[in-house]
Amino acid sequence: MRPSVNGDRLWRSLMELAEIGATRAGGVCRLALTDEDRDGRDWLARQAQESGLEISVDSLGNMFLKRAGALEAPSVLVGSHIDSQPSGGKFDGAFGVMAGLEICRVLNDAGIVTEHPIEIVAWTNEEGSRFLPVMAGSGVFAGVYDAATVLDARASDGARFGDELKRIGYAGVAEPKASNVAAYLEAHIEQGPVLEAHDRAIGVVSGALGQIWFEVEITGFEAHAGPTPMELRKDALQAAAEIVSGIEAIGRIHPHARATVGMISVWPNSRNVIPGRARFSVDLRHPDMIGRNEMEDRFHDLVVSVCTRRKVLSEIKKTNDWSPMAFDAELIGRVRLSVSKRGYSHLDLVSGAGHDAVYMARICPTAMIFIPCKDGVSHNELEDARFDHVEAGANVLLDCVLDTARQSR
Amino acid sequence: MRPSVNGDRLWRSLMELAEIGATRAGGVCRLALTDEDRDGRDWLARQAQESGLEISVDSLGNMFLKRAGALEAPSVLVGSHIDSQPSGGKFDGAFGVMAGLEICRVLNDAGIVTEHPIEIVAWTNEEGSRFLPVMAGSGVFAGVYDAATVLDARASDGARFGDELKRIGYAGVAEPKASNVAAYLEAHIEQGPVLEAHDRAIGVVSGALGQIWFEVEITGFEAHAGPTPMELRKDALQAAAEIVSGIEAIGRIHPHARATVGMISVWPNSRNVIPGRARFSVDLRHPDMIGRNEMEDRFHDLVVSVCTRRKVLSEIKKTNDWSPMAFDAELIGRVRLSVSKRGYSHLDLVSGAGHDAVYMARICPTAMIFIPCKDGVSHNELEDARFDHVEAGANVLLDCVLDTARQSR
Repeated sequence: MRPSVNGDRLWRSLMELAEIGATRAGGVCRLALTDEDRDGRDWLARQAQESGLEISVDSLGNMFLKRAGALEAPSVLVGSHIDSQPSGGKFDGAFGVMAGLEICRVLNDAGIVTEHPIEIVAWTNEEGSRFLPVMAGSGVFAGVYDAATVLDARASDGARFGDELKRIGYAGVAEPKASNVAAYLEAHIEQGPVLEAHDRAIGVVSGALGQIWFEVEITGFEAHAGPTPMELRKDALQAAAEIVSGIEAIGRIHPHARATVGMISVWPNSRNVIPGRARFSVDLRHPDMIGRNEMEDRFHDLVVSVCTRRKVLSEIKKTNDWSPMAFDAELIGRVRLSVSKRGYSHLDLVSGAGHDAVYMARICPTAMIFIPCKDGVSHNELEDARFDHVEAGANVLLDCVLDTARQSR
Repeated sequence: MRPSVNGDRLWRSLMELAEIGATRAGGVCRLALTDEDRDGRDWLARQAQESGLEISVDSLGNMFLKRAGALEAPSVLVGSHIDSQPSGGKFDGAFGVMAGLEICRVLNDAGIVTEHPIEIVAWTNEEGSRFLPVMAGSGVFAGVYDAATVLDARASDGARFGDELKRIGYAGVAEPKASNVAAYLEAHIEQGPVLEAHDRAIGVVSGALGQIWFEVEITGFEAHAGPTPMELRKDALQAAAEIVSGIEAIGRIHPHARATVGMISVWPNSRNVIPGRARFSVDLRHPDMIGRNEMEDRFHDLVVSVCTRRKVLSEIKKTNDWSPMAFDAELIGRVRLSVSKRGYSHLDLVSGAGHDAVYMARICPTAMIFIPCKDGVSHNELEDARFDHVEAGANVLLDCVLDTARQSR
């Protein structure tokens, strides 16, 4: 008989953790390396001890809670993070860690021993709200960042990452390194509206979108709005508006593509002055490199054609470039098998947001499991998820962990 | 023989006045009711005295420099303002006042006596940079504002209009009232690029554009740019961009119409968050009421149709509404007669900007004469005008003044 998680116990864990740093509006403020983060970690360590897990902490503060296997084999890692945004919710990150905890508890209850050890991981500073970079703990673990650089990062209040880590008592000595990982599995709320819109319980995540970020500056000619006829204008905002509309169209080249302008400013920003300058950000995402490149080409063509026709100048700066990341086919197959066996409604998705799993995918077989969140809202105190989805997601994670760590007895 | 102005003397007056509050970049900073404004007024008063003009100042600080006529008849007013923007130029306002001064000097030199008196007026606080409302002196004179309200206006540094006026010694006792005005004539730089673009010396100004100002707020749904597919977005900026483009099209319904979005902001203004809210200003201008109303209708239809289709909410607030103003046909005829007699190249224009003349047109026959300014630039230290255009504009003003005040001997 295939074991299942105890949904009530999992839900209670989530609600207990959410009390640490709880906000009045029902959210969570548990910024990385604050007292609340420490309290959350302490609480997690107690749960681990009570469940007989072996706790270790690396020099970045990444917490590993290990359930021994029958063999001296690489661990199957499951987890996410427990730090939050300043006005965060109860489920972002916490779900992946609590689901890992619940899995170990179920296996304990059932007396199941796996061949590979299972380790729950809680990555340090996934959110990047207080310290940059985001996904710092998994980034160093996966070799994307240097540990020393991350430890030297400063918060806007001047606090140093490494000092704060020591202060809260979670500066370990082990090097954050993926020495012994068989696979990484992360369950997470979708943080988007797709599963809810399609009324599905589980997102089978095939990978993560590639992202390219730009900053565009348009220079036209500032002039008085009254005396300047339309045909003699070089209106930087009009050029920008046309490009912004075109960017939306570029986002429609693929169902999983995204194109967003999130920031815009004009100068002098006066109601009766034709803007002489406009600046805006562009965020393009695509699941594959060919599509990503096509989006980039079309974006450049758009800017050039609008600005040439309008006789304004443009400058494009690329500020970020992350390639698309495909998750492991075998692990994805196990997610698919689980939802099919359990009869959960599901949908194939590509993760649009960054996750620790996207870094982990660089160094080991990786997959993610999404569950819906209410209205797609996340990074918000209103973030919410349904009991049955939380339970289903943890069951799929359990199946995948068991299929990967393999039942020994 | 028809007299002509002395172009060199007029140019010298402009350059002398521009030394008061001169900026390093070749512009002028002579904000209303500052020491520089006082110095400019003192200088103007000396010029008036030397030219035998009778000086009076009303309670708003409007300065009147009167050249007596043969008859006890209403005055022909000519003038503009000598206050400037913080980074203003040498010609905005100053040209109209200096041209008036030059006309009186020419008439003195030629020993011409007019039936009507001629009065040069320098209106207080046309620019509105330090105190609101703009065009305060002419506004009170024309009955648009109440003197007490204007005198009570506060600068951003806390200074009171009336106190500052007293401090610089230009708080007169006479009520600012249009008791005895036969006509008002104002020469001004165009502050736009049209005359230069058509290579014409004189703009025959038929009136002023009506203006309506709005503030539009779009409310969509803030969401993470990565996980949110294009078809599930309610992007407030995309709606705004589409409206901004549509507003440009509305501005093309008439050669003299204008439509401008000068300000825009989005929230939360983060590069990977779909804007949940966007706010922008709209400035629509048209030379006649029918067209003005059509622009307003089309603007409302545009906002409603875009927002309905995109399922976002909109709120439109009208923040200003000035009707189109037609200048006096007889005076415009005199401008046209002058340019034709003198063989100046010219173009029919509608003033897109506000001027003291627009208020004066409410209470007496009024006309304006435009001359080109370099690249259409004004409210800028780079503001510039050509000697021959300055001279030509003053000659047209002289002809109109003489035709209106009528030569007696």
